[in-house]
Amino acid sequence: MLNNKLGKHTVIFNNKPEILGTGSVVGVKEGEGPLGKRFDVVLEDDTYNEKTWEKAEIKMLSEAILLSMKKAGKAEKEIDAIISGDLLNQLMSASFTARDFDVPFIGIYGACSTMTESMILGSVLVDGGYAENVVSAASSHFCTSERQFRNPLEHGNQRPPAAQWTATASGSVVIGRTNKPNIVLTCATLGKVVDPGITDAHQMGAAMAPAALDTIHTHLSDTNRDPGYYDLILTGDLGHIGKDILLDMSKNRGLDLEKVHMDCGVLLYDKDQDTHSGGSGCGCSASVFAGHIYREILEGKLKKVLLVSTGALLSTTSTLQGDSIPGIAHAIAIEVEGN
Amino acid sequence: MLNNKLGKHTVIFNNKPEILGTGSVVGVKEGEGPLGKRFDVVLEDDTYNEKTWEKAEIKMLSEAILLSMKKAGKAEKEIDAIISGDLLNQLMSASFTARDFDVPFIGIYGACSTMTESMILGSVLVDGGYAENVVSAASSHFCTSERQFRNPLEHGNQRPPAAQWTATASGSVVIGRTNKPNIVLTCATLGKVVDPGITDAHQMGAAMAPAALDTIHTHLSDTNRDPGYYDLILTGDLGHIGKDILLDMSKNRGLDLEKVHMDCGVLLYDKDQDTHSGGSGCGCSASVFAGHIYREILEGKLKKVLLVSTGALLSTTSTLQGDSIPGIAHAIAIEVEGN
Repeated sequence: MLNNKLGKHTVIFNNKPEILGTGSVVGVKEGEGPLGKRFDVVLEDDTYNEKTWEKAEIKMLSEAILLSMKKAGKAEKEIDAIISGDLLNQLMSASFTARDFDVPFIGIYGACSTMTESMILGSVLVDGGYAENVVSAASSHFCTSERQFRNPLEHGNQRPPAAQWTATASGSVVIGRTNKPNIVLTCATLGKVVDPGITDAHQMGAAMAPAALDTIHTHLSDTNRDPGYYDLILTGDLGHIGKDILLDMSKNRGLDLEKVHMDCGVLLYDKDQDTHSGGSGCGCSASVFAGHIYREILEGKLKKVLLVSTGALLSTTSTLQGDSIPGIAHAIAIEVEGN
Repeated sequence: MLNNKLGKHTVIFNNKPEILGTGSVVGVKEGEGPLGKRFDVVLEDDTYNEKTWEKAEIKMLSEAILLSMKKAGKAEKEIDAIISGDLLNQLMSASFTARDFDVPFIGIYGACSTMTESMILGSVLVDGGYAENVVSAASSHFCTSERQFRNPLEHGNQRPPAAQWTATASGSVVIGRTNKPNIVLTCATLGKVVDPGITDAHQMGAAMAPAALDTIHTHLSDTNRDPGYYDLILTGDLGHIGKDILLDMSKNRGLDLEKVHMDCGVLLYDKDQDTHSGGSGCGCSASVFAGHIYREILEGKLKKVLLVSTGALLSTTSTLQGDSIPGIAHAIAIEVEGN
């Protein structure tokens, strides 16, 4: 038996890696939503005074990282790695953000599951004594994503009811250790690829819900916990439709998530903001966790949270070649020490 | 001081994570090159009997992973994670390969540095006791890359002399532990993004050489080693031009790499194969290491190798927006136990 592995796919952090600080930067629409006051920065203009949407996203990610470092009280030279990813081809936002820091860079891609993938790897590095402090971050931008994946905004294409709105948002957390652990990353479950055979790229919630269920089920089984152990099991961006599918499927598996489940994509926008099935994008769970949820924890409203960012691992090429959408979800547990 | 960190950016593996087996699959041209007999599988046709180049690359990556598991004597259920990446948008090859395995998937992207990034994260997971066995793998395919990054093959565009040839190749290693450690991953240095300001996407070697030097210099400084400590310092895909630049720059920094340095992109093809400056792509260092170099180690010809895969973190969008090419390089030391 390994010290730091539990059950099938769960890793245990015995040395109390902690969240030392977070940063969140969101766009105009996200600022107008129900969580608007729960982010560090709300842009007045989604270009963020840059010449291209891509440069705006890079600036948002960079700003979230700097804010998290400032709140954690860590200088650049105290950070041993930036682990980050985004939706753009070749991780353009993360790579160009990392260029501005004199810190090793670990680029990762898990589509919209990137934030938990990053936090898991960051926790491993800190827990295992491979790094003092690590930045885990992710971003997305509605306009860069639309240009790349679907249609440039200027086309004015109509969106179907199941479509989700890629969040213009970035989130970052600094993971490290102190002598008085407070908000601790206790364990995590690595997700497998699950593909339910969905071929419609506007049905992301349906494509990701089975992966979310698989990871949550594995996590609870590995840790021998009931859903009620957590105050909140928070999926990344299943949206309204995906959330319903997850709850339905959970019941069929004998798992009652109803009372503890919420989804970042559902939380981020009001129904009347016309996002249809809710938010998505790497920045969705990154900003909702680093902004709103982290504040709920600081305010004592949440003590045990399982963050389960969800990703749809399709590409435009795979869709054009008629392939279905592989889903994935990684889970990490955040628990207030002494509770 | 942390147990597993040395100097600025080097991590130490104290628990002797080992390479238990490797797999390598290459295309026709790579099979005709000087290392042709040093790979497990050489394709007779780069389509690998698939309908698209992308599906061929997925099959190559999958086959390399299966071969490495077979040679390591590990069944699928004994593997705790597949850590993999490739050059395709949204990691199409790695994601769709992972779909065929009932194993957690960690998608990563470091352009052509992906193989060492993967091996470092795999070594951390195994060394830290978070995983029993991990697969680290990467792939690239000339035809998928040309379609995505430059010009579809049918255009018949001319390539400038500094251009490199994206290898049609995949490589995989299984990392685990035994009671009799043999080929051990001893330490690794995480690379920072270094951007020398190159804007010509056909000058990859020049864009990556400074990052390679930065990582090698940091590694030798952190570990207090001379270049001669290693039998071989093997960069990923600087190619002929990048190799010359690295050696020139090294001398200026007071570092003599001449006797121990070689580059996978230089090794993979003969000069008369018309690849111009040599090989590149995630699969270049992945296959050369998992195929040729691993055999050299098994045959007792090499005992201490520093593998330094190099990546150019550009995207087509960043190039079109006139931005320069950020380079990165990660290094991992492979040492035969008792030497």
